[in-house]
Amino acid sequence: MAFSLDPKLQADTYLIGRLSLCQILLMNNANFPWIILVPEREEITEIFDLSEQDRNMLMQEINFCAKKLKAFTSCDKINIGLIGNIVSQLHCHIVARFDSDMAWPNTVWGQEKVLYKEEQARALTQQLKKLLC
Amino acid sequence: MAFSLDPKLQADTYLIGRLSLCQILLMNNANFPWIILVPEREEITEIFDLSEQDRNMLMQEINFCAKKLKAFTSCDKINIGLIGNIVSQLHCHIVARFDSDMAWPNTVWGQEKVLYKEEQARALTQQLKKLLC
Repeated sequence: MAFSLDPKLQADTYLIGRLSLCQILLMNNANFPWIILVPEREEITEIFDLSEQDRNMLMQEINFCAKKLKAFTSCDKINIGLIGNIVSQLHCHIVARFDSDMAWPNTVWGQEKVLYKEEQARALTQQLKKLLC
Repeated sequence: MAFSLDPKLQADTYLIGRLSLCQILLMNNANFPWIILVPEREEITEIFDLSEQDRNMLMQEINFCAKKLKAFTSCDKINIGLIGNIVSQLHCHIVARFDSDMAWPNTVWGQEKVLYKEEQARALTQQLKKLLC
């Protein structure tokens, strides 16, 4: 079945690139270095809806991106979340957190959002593409 | 190296039991059916600190518990989070969410906590032990 990205995810992000299983998106929120992995599988809302093979690949891709994002940002902590209360299409947040950031030690969900300027987003997307793809 | 559970995790939870890799804890918050998996490995704060074998096992145990918790609660959505901004010892939240719960569609972190009565906690812990261990 054909995969199509949820319209809200599409509206809130920039496409960085693709891994074997997932699209990698940059969340349009300049307050936090924040990427989102979306398995390119249709009709999946929970991890147990994935095949075992896809689930292992998802873990591998989460791990890869988390490690790279940590090295790239020198952050204090990586936060990982699969929530999906608003957008049900399965997606995984990977966020670089600093003990100096605006929400620390709280989570990033529901916090104020500051959009990237177009040229900032383009530059960061390119950097992350080199790093991750 | 010997594993010991972080004191804050210990204070905030009841022990349900053990899987191959993780301790399963019940979060002492009656507002949400909420378990926590803690890999019994010392000095681990990020998923990429785990060996690949342990990481795959963690995914398997997250998936197992998420699926069982969904079936047990008939919830609307499972939320999964590895945050660790306050407690750095690697741990994974698995929370059953209802579109009627007090925080929906927001996340559970930072929400008001209502402690279980001792006998409620004991009964639920026993039920979850039968379900998960």
